[in-house]
Amino acid sequence: MALIVQKYGGTSVGSTERIAAVADKIIATRSQGHDLVVVVSAMSGETNRLVELAKSFGDPPHAREFDVLLATGEQVTISLLSMALQARGCPARSYTGAQVQILTDSVHNKARILEINDKNIHADLKRGTVVVVAGFQGIDCDGNITTLGRGGSDTSAVALAAALEADECQIYTDVDGVYTTDPRVVPEARRLDQICFEEMLEMASLGSKVLQIRSVEFASKFNVPIRVLSSFKEGKGTLIAPEDNKMEKALISGIAFNRDESKLTLLGVPDQPGIAYNILGDIADANIEVDMIIQNIGADGTTDFTFTVHRNDYKKALDILHNKTKDLGIREIKGDNHIAKISLVGVGMRSHAGIASTMFKALADEGINIQMISTSEIKISVVIHEKYLELGVRALHTAFNLDKETKD
Amino acid sequence: MALIVQKYGGTSVGSTERIAAVADKIIATRSQGHDLVVVVSAMSGETNRLVELAKSFGDPPHAREFDVLLATGEQVTISLLSMALQARGCPARSYTGAQVQILTDSVHNKARILEINDKNIHADLKRGTVVVVAGFQGIDCDGNITTLGRGGSDTSAVALAAALEADECQIYTDVDGVYTTDPRVVPEARRLDQICFEEMLEMASLGSKVLQIRSVEFASKFNVPIRVLSSFKEGKGTLIAPEDNKMEKALISGIAFNRDESKLTLLGVPDQPGIAYNILGDIADANIEVDMIIQNIGADGTTDFTFTVHRNDYKKALDILHNKTKDLGIREIKGDNHIAKISLVGVGMRSHAGIASTMFKALADEGINIQMISTSEIKISVVIHEKYLELGVRALHTAFNLDKETKD
Repeated sequence: MALIVQKYGGTSVGSTERIAAVADKIIATRSQGHDLVVVVSAMSGETNRLVELAKSFGDPPHAREFDVLLATGEQVTISLLSMALQARGCPARSYTGAQVQILTDSVHNKARILEINDKNIHADLKRGTVVVVAGFQGIDCDGNITTLGRGGSDTSAVALAAALEADECQIYTDVDGVYTTDPRVVPEARRLDQICFEEMLEMASLGSKVLQIRSVEFASKFNVPIRVLSSFKEGKGTLIAPEDNKMEKALISGIAFNRDESKLTLLGVPDQPGIAYNILGDIADANIEVDMIIQNIGADGTTDFTFTVHRNDYKKALDILHNKTKDLGIREIKGDNHIAKISLVGVGMRSHAGIASTMFKALADEGINIQMISTSEIKISVVIHEKYLELGVRALHTAFNLDKETKD
Repeated sequence: MALIVQKYGGTSVGSTERIAAVADKIIATRSQGHDLVVVVSAMSGETNRLVELAKSFGDPPHAREFDVLLATGEQVTISLLSMALQARGCPARSYTGAQVQILTDSVHNKARILEINDKNIHADLKRGTVVVVAGFQGIDCDGNITTLGRGGSDTSAVALAAALEADECQIYTDVDGVYTTDPRVVPEARRLDQICFEEMLEMASLGSKVLQIRSVEFASKFNVPIRVLSSFKEGKGTLIAPEDNKMEKALISGIAFNRDESKLTLLGVPDQPGIAYNILGDIADANIEVDMIIQNIGADGTTDFTFTVHRNDYKKALDILHNKTKDLGIREIKGDNHIAKISLVGVGMRSHAGIASTMFKALADEGINIQMISTSEIKISVVIHEKYLELGVRALHTAFNLDKETKD
């Protein structure tokens, strides 16, 4: 008998029919003898409806009151799901974030969880009651309602699992696990049975939308095993857990990619201390996030400096640089917003050489030019022209034996 | 400078435009130097939407969870109204029932208020903040969300006014006050400037829908002056206050009526102790509420017994009586569900004779036969055939000089 925290997202509870299906799923898990805490999001569409209402009253709406408004979304779901369970003869009890209570700081709209009081939940579990908790919300020490921001329900689930020392935190979503890469791009993409926290963090930060980074960080910090499962399809999903030393690592766990970025290159930058800060300081001040940064020393005492920003910020970043050209003595500025980034992720990289050369060869074989390279301990990223994105991902997926049918 | 509690019902806050209009109204009151606590209902239509969602999961839905669901309706309104006020530069702060806190008993769906903690509200008022409170809801001593049942937001407003010792509790609704009778029946009906609690209680219990009886009882108990006003029309409304001894009473304040009732008559009932209990005990056991009861001793040692029930319960009550005919030795049972009740209400009745005879004459002059009569200290009710309802009300309205143009 285990203690399991299950989390169902907005699509999984998007209608009364789907809430009924979730109730059946919960009862099936419970009948296996497990104790259950269920975290739910707002019904899909509900948050948008509320945001639409708020739009009439200021943009952005008053932060404290916006949280009071948004928190109703999950409150509706917890009550309906608890009713559905009760109607099926399964004892259940709903909790808002305030009722639990999930204590957060007072930063409205993106609060952080400070502490969870598990007293009432434990008492309910002892009585055999399924505990249904509103995700995404908490309460600050003054009794104000707070919300956790994007991906908040995942974070609620993981935090509850950590506080309750649950055996597993199951995240039900509309995909049936974490894949080696996006199956829409590579039909041969394979569901991973297991992936470690670090790999998942890299996958998430590189655009794999299965889980929010924040909840993976949380799970990693508190060592909570997460299992990603489909609400609509039976299956074992993908277990995200601490690195397992017993089994031999796959070289590469997955391939992440995105085409959200754009590239800015400064040619002939005087090679002197403080120049990088001088360039990026103004970019940061404009609230533009920088992803990859590469600097190469040229032959003539100047340097070439390239960085990438989100495509939405491309124009703004370019304007900032043009205004600085003279101050900094830069020869030329080049921009490109038709790039794509592909990243290989895998803890196996740590102990295996030759990953990079295999990667570069696979791309070269397809005639794909690499514009930028950046590496970390468990990741290699390259920037290429966006038109080669699908081709490159497929080539790498095959080159690293990630396809469903093993090609060895 | 006064402390005013204002309450806006579902229609008054039924859209973002209307919420904006309410915000303007609040700011206008505040600019006169008053401190303001505002109680709001769910946006019109919202409660029905939530009830519809709950229908999938049991009828009736689980009581505790139904309250969790319904309470979101008012929570949406408090946040939107507070945003609207903030957007207009008026400091405002929303409170759910739990946040206030409005402590109730644990009878879900029809909880009763036990105590209101006014500490935070007073602190906000001192800072010049408009306090926006969710009506209809509270919290029990275990932290469960409760709702107050029908008319609950009026009750919340009056209870808050009592706890805060407010100078006035203003109930904004879709009518501009309490009328001498329903203006749809008598176009000459006149808005009353003032009416006392007892009269209002009689008017409310007789079908005048302006205020729920419960909130009037509450106001009467704690001596809270209520003013009924229109959200959509300027005006002074009607003040409902303790009886004012300084001014001479009007004979009659208003005429209430309804056609929701039906009449059951038992003829030739053996005149012996316990017979009334014997008849009405079974009716009560079937959860049928009895309104008027009249018993007359006949000539032959038997008695005639008549009572009225809601028209929805007519068939059920008739069946119960038919099953008892033999046991009780009743000669005959008659039923009539085409009746109407008209009541004159006025504290002036206490000190003036001749009201009843004026009433009976006015009805007789129109050829209207009176089937039942029942009186209390400040009320006379008659039952007539429903087809004479409008005619009777109009005749009485004129006979007691209630028409707009005084006819003296």
